[in-house]
Amino acid sequence: MADLEIRDATAGDLPAIVALLADDPLGAQRESPDDLTPYAAALDRLSADPSQHVVVAVRDGRVVGTLQLSIIPGLSHKGATRALVEAVRIHSDERGSGLGSRLIEWAIDTSRRLDCKMMQLTSDKTRRDAHRFYERLGFTASHEGFKLRL
Amino acid sequence: MADLEIRDATAGDLPAIVALLADDPLGAQRESPDDLTPYAAALDRLSADPSQHVVVAVRDGRVVGTLQLSIIPGLSHKGATRALVEAVRIHSDERGSGLGSRLIEWAIDTSRRLDCKMMQLTSDKTRRDAHRFYERLGFTASHEGFKLRL
Repeated sequence: MADLEIRDATAGDLPAIVALLADDPLGAQRESPDDLTPYAAALDRLSADPSQHVVVAVRDGRVVGTLQLSIIPGLSHKGATRALVEAVRIHSDERGSGLGSRLIEWAIDTSRRLDCKMMQLTSDKTRRDAHRFYERLGFTASHEGFKLRL
Repeated sequence: MADLEIRDATAGDLPAIVALLADDPLGAQRESPDDLTPYAAALDRLSADPSQHVVVAVRDGRVVGTLQLSIIPGLSHKGATRALVEAVRIHSDERGSGLGSRLIEWAIDTSRRLDCKMMQLTSDKTRRDAHRFYERLGFTASHEGFKLRL
């Protein structure tokens, strides 16, 4: 397999990123790949915020994965900074290839470099395969994840 | 009961905030109320970041509750901004008084004003009372919450 590059997402990556977000039983119901306007506005906001890192994994010039890493200072745990991972998506052609592990390992390395003491993420309770994946990487499902639509 | 004020935390509130963080079966193991140095550095960082809101609830001049609200832009859900709630603590004298609801309602109102589409938080699986509290406020325990110490 060709080498993999993990780099910051740019506006040119948006069609591929949104296609990944929508290519999923949950994402298909809530994304709009035919109208990129709201995503472009959100990427502008993300790019202007030094605590936000949206990256893409690129192989052979093609976006095959993405995730968002957010760096969040805090008071608890003796003033520990946390890293939050959201919106992890792997192209269907690449599932099982180790790409998910590569992306999460990138996030772990980056978070350690930025002096984060903890990484956290939530995963929908229906995503059983994802839960096994995160447990294999050393995560503990120690918390309930609550959501409220506003 | 006297009126309640919810306002941004200042350095003068740190002894009371850290006492709240430590007055808890989980917090007692991981906080250092006798050394506020790391908390002061973290509060400086939080105060400099317009996406972070650490607030205290004050009654009769006394800090009786705290939470942190983080505003996180994102691409998924059509570029939706999320609100993350962390480090919710209520003074033992005030538990069951409705103060927790007042603080979460403050967070919900603030998040809506800032155009957030979703609020999320995780709660340790041992905190059963907290889970009932969030469910009463309309949250759904739809996700597994994974953590990894770095």
